[in-house]
Amino acid sequence: MPVNYATPAPEALLPVAGVRLGTAEAGIRKKNRRDLTLIEFAPGSHAAGVFTQNRCCAAPVTLCREHLATDGSIRALVINTGIANAATGEQGMRAARDTCDAVARMLGCRADEVLPFSTGVILEHLPVDRLIAGLPAAQADLAADHWHAAAHAIMTTDTVAKAASRRVTSADCQFTVTGISKGAGMIRPNMATMLGFVATDAGIAPALLQKLAKDAADASFNCITVDGDTSTNDSFVVIATGASGCMIDSEASPHWPAVRDAVIGVAQELAQAIVRDGEGATKFITVRVGGGGTAEECRLVAYAIGHSPLVKTAFFASDPNLGRILAAIGYAGIADLDAAGVRVWLGSGAEEVLVSENGGRADSYREEDGSRIMQAAEITVRADLGRGVAQATVWTCDLSYDYVKINADYRS
Amino acid sequence: MPVNYATPAPEALLPVAGVRLGTAEAGIRKKNRRDLTLIEFAPGSHAAGVFTQNRCCAAPVTLCREHLATDGSIRALVINTGIANAATGEQGMRAARDTCDAVARMLGCRADEVLPFSTGVILEHLPVDRLIAGLPAAQADLAADHWHAAAHAIMTTDTVAKAASRRVTSADCQFTVTGISKGAGMIRPNMATMLGFVATDAGIAPALLQKLAKDAADASFNCITVDGDTSTNDSFVVIATGASGCMIDSEASPHWPAVRDAVIGVAQELAQAIVRDGEGATKFITVRVGGGGTAEECRLVAYAIGHSPLVKTAFFASDPNLGRILAAIGYAGIADLDAAGVRVWLGSGAEEVLVSENGGRADSYREEDGSRIMQAAEITVRADLGRGVAQATVWTCDLSYDYVKINADYRS
Repeated sequence: MPVNYATPAPEALLPVAGVRLGTAEAGIRKKNRRDLTLIEFAPGSHAAGVFTQNRCCAAPVTLCREHLATDGSIRALVINTGIANAATGEQGMRAARDTCDAVARMLGCRADEVLPFSTGVILEHLPVDRLIAGLPAAQADLAADHWHAAAHAIMTTDTVAKAASRRVTSADCQFTVTGISKGAGMIRPNMATMLGFVATDAGIAPALLQKLAKDAADASFNCITVDGDTSTNDSFVVIATGASGCMIDSEASPHWPAVRDAVIGVAQELAQAIVRDGEGATKFITVRVGGGGTAEECRLVAYAIGHSPLVKTAFFASDPNLGRILAAIGYAGIADLDAAGVRVWLGSGAEEVLVSENGGRADSYREEDGSRIMQAAEITVRADLGRGVAQATVWTCDLSYDYVKINADYRS
Repeated sequence: MPVNYATPAPEALLPVAGVRLGTAEAGIRKKNRRDLTLIEFAPGSHAAGVFTQNRCCAAPVTLCREHLATDGSIRALVINTGIANAATGEQGMRAARDTCDAVARMLGCRADEVLPFSTGVILEHLPVDRLIAGLPAAQADLAADHWHAAAHAIMTTDTVAKAASRRVTSADCQFTVTGISKGAGMIRPNMATMLGFVATDAGIAPALLQKLAKDAADASFNCITVDGDTSTNDSFVVIATGASGCMIDSEASPHWPAVRDAVIGVAQELAQAIVRDGEGATKFITVRVGGGGTAEECRLVAYAIGHSPLVKTAFFASDPNLGRILAAIGYAGIADLDAAGVRVWLGSGAEEVLVSENGGRADSYREEDGSRIMQAAEITVRADLGRGVAQATVWTCDLSYDYVKINADYRS
């Protein structure tokens, strides 16, 4: 059960002009499951993406980078679940290329206008023949209002489909931004999440679109962690179809702030949904670290807290064993951190209590306050490092029996 | 239940000339539990130690560093469990100083010849009056053959006491090396484990003793991880009493290799015992990474594998979901790692199978081989990075339901 998250209703996911989606059962790994998704874009659409920094990245990630290195024009995404096509060597690269070739023939476009994505088990080969055989059914299913079905079709260990949608008006232009994501474990994105796709009908110049993709990833998928494992397949792509008829050529465009905020807002909703649906999660934790010399050192500390199995099990137990947070701050890797200058607060909703200052427990802190806040489903840990003005935020979840159960049973 | 580990029998723990140990119930945090340990050394003994790099280190760690910065002469260790005296500010420092002063008065030595150690809950104050009130009982209990009782008294979440002992003969000298350690969670030492103490009756010159402590820590406690959490209280101390009458002044001494090997051997046994007793552990995993450009990059990879919750849950499930190992290698942080050059083997006992090469699954690898090896209680993951000759080893354990249970319930 995700923490305070439910998939938006189908009608809440607004169609994006120039985008159609179709799903099909290709039998990639399991039968009777829609495991193949095709997303088609109108001619003139452009894409930009950010991808995993994992050196053992999956074949489709390599091919996405190659295809986006041309002119960024895009006609389709093809996404399969079941097999990640990662650690599959040359055979995996051929499978990804064959997939793109088949989609290109079917849609009448160039292969480098197709981006492939896979998610599932690593080190096993993609049954590319079954995938290609399933493409016509996905094409036949293409429709502008199939975002909800696509969000379901890209799930693996997710317990809920993740999607978000916004409509913004800027001057006389109206734009729609709709996106979907998947992921629940192997989540410590390093440039993007497992899979996230956000489309808008704004027209956005390619260089600006690339900046937007990176800014949106940095403000969303790059701020989350479930288990600290960076996937081989992390991919986040923003597609701008231009079908609204309004074009954004530069950051000086009057439409830029509204579209930028909408894309980042959708990306944050999608990223937080992944944490709320984190494997075994019972709590949604926001870790805000401020007072740092640099944003990077704030991120180090926030991730040390967000990754610590001891901190995460304490949240699961609703036990204010808050010394574990201090320990994580201490080992985060800031060599000259002055522990006496660190302050830590614990909060939920409108309440926030000072837990620690001057290298020890705050005089005003009372265990019953900590205990009460730890019962909440949404908790904020705030730390001030007392050495500057930089800050960073990480969203994470607790570590429960079910995380172990889900990951011990994943392949069975 | 630890993985293939049992505490040695009392008679297997050889007394070290010049060392006596006593334990007592001080009621630090729980009643009816020997939670106070005093280890007394004959005049002329020297100590050297390595301590946590955690910036939020505990008060006793700060005081140990201060006391060892004088001449390294040592007359006693005083160790309490229950409260870690970490993140306790100035009051914590006063408690640690008062403890050393009380021991010094009792034994008739200088306060800086006493080293204090605490382990237990962080962010709570040490009841120093109860600790000091318990000292006379610990003194009354002092005996040369109380290593077994001391190993028990320093336990917290440990399920077994950890101790090791060796006797070595070099030329006409006979030396004894005996040590104890504690730790089961919050284990990712960064200079030393939670607590480890090794004593020998060899005489070792102070500078050489410091080198030995560091070398032994690097070859033992700095090669283990349970949950990746570096404790605030990690301490490892080697004490040389010189009571054997044989002195080692330099590395040129004919006795040096035998004593060095014995100390490192005891330290490795103690460190591995901590992993075997890792919270919830059902498997003991050795991760050997070779073919690296530097030892440091091999350690990065070995720890990435050893920390990955996904790898650790796969071991718990005996599921050869080995792509997770490849993923961990890929995100370990070697920016220019060529995934196609990496090879990975899985082994147990005399058997070892090649799992992956050329960026994918090895042609010779069969799932049933992986499944069979994964059933074993002791498993070796070996990786060759194909980029040099450096190597590193890390010992770790799996991640089970019980890890979560133990850490969710720790304070209750």
